[in-house]
Amino acid sequence: MSEAPRDIENLIELMAKLPGLGPRSARRAVLYLIRKRALVLTPLADAMQAVAETARECVTCGNVSTSDRCDICVSEKRSTGEICVVEDVADLWAMERAGLFKGRYHVLGGTLSALDAVGPEDLGIPRLVQRVVDDNISEVILALNATVDGQTTAHYIADELEGRCLVSSLAQGVPIGGELDYLDEGTISAALSARKRM
Amino acid sequence: MSEAPRDIENLIELMAKLPGLGPRSARRAVLYLIRKRALVLTPLADAMQAVAETARECVTCGNVSTSDRCDICVSEKRSTGEICVVEDVADLWAMERAGLFKGRYHVLGGTLSALDAVGPEDLGIPRLVQRVVDDNISEVILALNATVDGQTTAHYIADELEGRCLVSSLAQGVPIGGELDYLDEGTISAALSARKRM
Repeated sequence: MSEAPRDIENLIELMAKLPGLGPRSARRAVLYLIRKRALVLTPLADAMQAVAETARECVTCGNVSTSDRCDICVSEKRSTGEICVVEDVADLWAMERAGLFKGRYHVLGGTLSALDAVGPEDLGIPRLVQRVVDDNISEVILALNATVDGQTTAHYIADELEGRCLVSSLAQGVPIGGELDYLDEGTISAALSARKRM
Repeated sequence: MSEAPRDIENLIELMAKLPGLGPRSARRAVLYLIRKRALVLTPLADAMQAVAETARECVTCGNVSTSDRCDICVSEKRSTGEICVVEDVADLWAMERAGLFKGRYHVLGGTLSALDAVGPEDLGIPRLVQRVVDDNISEVILALNATVDGQTTAHYIADELEGRCLVSSLAQGVPIGGELDYLDEGTISAALSARKRM
């Protein structure tokens, strides 16, 4: 890959590190950026600079933020009695898009994993327990992924919080618009066990 | 999409404009960038800034360059008698990766199109003819895509250059590693017509 000038080659190599882009799509993206210099490239460079300078982790919940405490943690409009536990910021954003939850969050930043030596401290679980006690939290909602690692972590957190507050987790069942024919057996079994009277 | 702080939201929107990235993958990419701030985000912002400042079109061939004339046009090692005509810079890079062609290029920046009102001047075809005359070019190799638009443009250029130099085009046939079973009839017919004695 030495067909482009060094500056451009360097940009392609960095772009190729982004998730979802490989060397070929990074080249396409860079050519697009050069063609749209004023409209996209310069604003994008500025936006990256701004985020590089301001982005940090909320000290309370672990959300991304441009100040020490994130917008959700400082918002007067959010109820203070519930904490929703998510694996990462992308999941927090997904919850916010759904728009139903009005409490605050705790972002784990991963799941417990003996193999990768990720323990409760790495996920801020002791900090979560402390928040539950200090802030008089009534309910912790575990919105972890329905994977083995996610559910293991959920059970660990539920045990840690036993007797301190109500602990709930997202319902499992048929997704809205989902067709039974395309669902795995586990989901159908879960939906059947949790069936509701019409 | 108001779940992230404004700076970060802005970066996501700009990233989503890149070819190959949509809103969802742009969010993933931005979260990745924030996590890898020192390692990727800051270098990427700097690299974009550098390219935004230096990238321009080579005045001779239309290749991307960081100076008025591109590395290939100024290189002493490239032969001066052949020009390879390509549709865009990505195709030029593909030719360079193949590594066989040692002449110089002419980048059209598109194909002739009556519908989109793209005429010969927009593609620099008069400039190409002038180069052929001025630089005493012996051969022009048309490396245009094997699409209807690409081949229409190729025929137009061949007509313009008639009598001024040799005009050739890339061979059509079975790609290296290609399986006949997966090739379209047009390719197989072209390969059969252009069959070579072993």
